[in-house]
Amino acid sequence: MLPIALADAPELSALILGAVLLNLVVIYLASKVGSEVCIRLGLPPVLGELVGGVLVGVSVLHLLVFPEQDPTGQSSLIMQFLQLTGGMAPVDRPEVFHATNEVISLLSELGVIILLFEVGLESDLRELVKVGVWATIVAVVGVTVPFALGTAGALLIFHVPAIPAIFAGAALTATSIGITSKVLSDLGQLGSREGQIILGAAIIDDILGIIVLAVVASLAKTGQVDVSNLVGLIVSSSGFLLGAILLGSLFSRVFVITTQMLKSRGGVIIPAFVFAFSMAYFAQAIHLEAILGSFAAGLILDETDQKNELQHQVVPIADLLVPTFFIGVGAKTDLGVLNPSVPANQEGLVIAAFLIVVAILGKVVTGLAVWGEPNINRLAIGVGMIPRGEVGLVFAGIGTSLGILSESLNAAIIMMVIITTFLAPPLLRFVFAKSPNSTSTA
Amino acid sequence: MLPIALADAPELSALILGAVLLNLVVIYLASKVGSEVCIRLGLPPVLGELVGGVLVGVSVLHLLVFPEQDPTGQSSLIMQFLQLTGGMAPVDRPEVFHATNEVISLLSELGVIILLFEVGLESDLRELVKVGVWATIVAVVGVTVPFALGTAGALLIFHVPAIPAIFAGAALTATSIGITSKVLSDLGQLGSREGQIILGAAIIDDILGIIVLAVVASLAKTGQVDVSNLVGLIVSSSGFLLGAILLGSLFSRVFVITTQMLKSRGGVIIPAFVFAFSMAYFAQAIHLEAILGSFAAGLILDETDQKNELQHQVVPIADLLVPTFFIGVGAKTDLGVLNPSVPANQEGLVIAAFLIVVAILGKVVTGLAVWGEPNINRLAIGVGMIPRGEVGLVFAGIGTSLGILSESLNAAIIMMVIITTFLAPPLLRFVFAKSPNSTSTA
Repeated sequence: MLPIALADAPELSALILGAVLLNLVVIYLASKVGSEVCIRLGLPPVLGELVGGVLVGVSVLHLLVFPEQDPTGQSSLIMQFLQLTGGMAPVDRPEVFHATNEVISLLSELGVIILLFEVGLESDLRELVKVGVWATIVAVVGVTVPFALGTAGALLIFHVPAIPAIFAGAALTATSIGITSKVLSDLGQLGSREGQIILGAAIIDDILGIIVLAVVASLAKTGQVDVSNLVGLIVSSSGFLLGAILLGSLFSRVFVITTQMLKSRGGVIIPAFVFAFSMAYFAQAIHLEAILGSFAAGLILDETDQKNELQHQVVPIADLLVPTFFIGVGAKTDLGVLNPSVPANQEGLVIAAFLIVVAILGKVVTGLAVWGEPNINRLAIGVGMIPRGEVGLVFAGIGTSLGILSESLNAAIIMMVIITTFLAPPLLRFVFAKSPNSTSTA
Repeated sequence: MLPIALADAPELSALILGAVLLNLVVIYLASKVGSEVCIRLGLPPVLGELVGGVLVGVSVLHLLVFPEQDPTGQSSLIMQFLQLTGGMAPVDRPEVFHATNEVISLLSELGVIILLFEVGLESDLRELVKVGVWATIVAVVGVTVPFALGTAGALLIFHVPAIPAIFAGAALTATSIGITSKVLSDLGQLGSREGQIILGAAIIDDILGIIVLAVVASLAKTGQVDVSNLVGLIVSSSGFLLGAILLGSLFSRVFVITTQMLKSRGGVIIPAFVFAFSMAYFAQAIHLEAILGSFAAGLILDETDQKNELQHQVVPIADLLVPTFFIGVGAKTDLGVLNPSVPANQEGLVIAAFLIVVAILGKVVTGLAVWGEPNINRLAIGVGMIPRGEVGLVFAGIGTSLGILSESLNAAIIMMVIITTFLAPPLLRFVFAKSPNSTSTA
């Protein structure tokens, strides 16, 4: 039962399938080895997945290589294996390599979409609304403080010109929902009050990050801020959040009626994914992010009677797709920027040290903003906001593609992202372990 | 949390994700509407998925269009929707269209791989070995009779030259495991003796089909049969089947030990998929098909204690991926070949009528080959072998790309594939309904 496309290109389509299968096998092996080692060391499994990704990625084993690092896939061991065992001609490699990466990247994007859908299912809308004020304050502080300190420091200490200094400051504002929520889930803290504040703040932070990016990018491109675009983004994001909260009960009623009518296999999971993927597309169409849509969908379906069945069925799907995301983040991490023998890295390392301090302090202080709450683990909230993840890399990437960032500043931002991302999971475990009386409900 | 690739091409990567999400939503809607209608009409759900695919595909609604039919995606309604709501520039359409199709095609290939893994899990290796002799006889008869009748008829009645006549005969030999096994599973007949004979025969038929294709293609290209290639294929396929049966208990023991050691999430499903995907790659690397590998993996893991947990966890994953395959088969079906106002189709329709009769009779007689068995539904076995599915289309596609098949003969083969594929599910339900005492264990 060969695919029809084979008729046109008997070799390529089969080779791409073979390459995707090999990529998935490598991803799963790295993910399992990494998370099992971390569990035995008392660390969160997601850290193991990130480290596992680094091991199979561009920095060490060159099994998972991406076109950003090697346009033709020449260094990819999987491609070499495919030439050896799958009969791939060297001339076909670039095409097979690119198509395979297209597929793996898409699987990893679907992976985060499903991860956030699952996080939404595990979250309680009412609880999130209840912590909404604290979450907003934490997010605003967590965006303002690192941005101000980072920009000022770059300007005054390192004499970086204004636009790149603002860009470096902006890169410090992000919080990676994916990494934060996975760590919280691993620690069984997603349902705790701290967990819900962190999650809410990370989501608001994500929206603020999109707005900051739009402002900074238009500033960099045209020298001024595109106000109408800015207003549009603020209106659409507030509208999306409010709409999801207000129309949620209508959507969940339609979902319940639909699933009750269906008699075929997948009668609960398929309508749920139709809803989640539609919301993801909608969020993206209004210039937000797809993951905000699937998170909102999960939050809404959490209110239905099918919630438990749905949670149960999403687990194996998440197990299958989510590792492609975390291993991918690790594999794309080029540890070469940490090499001090490269001149750009030397200057970069000094700036990086400064950015890392600001990145950590600027987020840890957010916990202090939750001033009126007794019995709350303020340190955990601050630490939960630390990981920058791929969001920070997007800033660095866009900055470089716009020609704003110098090589050393770019390297410094990437180092900051790597350190905060890898540091947050063990730190978070540590600060949660220190408060055994935190109100976990998970 | 935007993907890193965004840094290079802020628009394209997000557009491709949006297009994939829209494609999946359309696939799920078509799959659910089709299968729900069929269930209410007392027909197998998979027929509904095929018809649903035709409705959203190139023949009717143009929502799912493939590059084989429209190289730039101009006619795709999803692409137009993306231009309207996602802000895609028309100049980006071809690239987004191709990348999206790459991903959807791969998802559908993963879908069949997982379908056959699930079928393997539901099958009993000992039962299959027990019916092995009958399955082999059914497969050999089901390859020989349609091939001989088809080739002879094309030569003698329609005066087609020798090579294209042999090609048309060869296209009649295939049996689509995917469609057959899904119908059997829908009918709860996968575990019956008839079901196991059909499944075994379809698998052997698939292997014979690969051998026939290799022979016919080398005959068409060079005018003679490549004997060493032929011997290689026969050796590797027999070796694969025997190896899977003999080494199965070793593999399943390694699997059991591995899963007992794992403490992280997905500790059963991930090792199972590592095994299934490795076997799929291995089968493909020795010039068999990936689905034979995943089927063998399912068959082997069926012998373990984790079987039930595994079956349970594979269900939602199959629900998510398998529809992409059946909707895809339907969507690629161009009903235009049935239009009698096109000259090539007129001649084609006459040849098609002949091929369809041979295709059905040539497989139905296979039931008679199971002569020594009392109380067996011979008609069901014959009917179960009817659907040609995409395997027949591969023959037609390769024949056309080699310049062997005339337009009318090509159209005739495609018509034969469409009719047998769409006819088999309702026929199979009908013949199974007539034998209430068939020995179902499912």
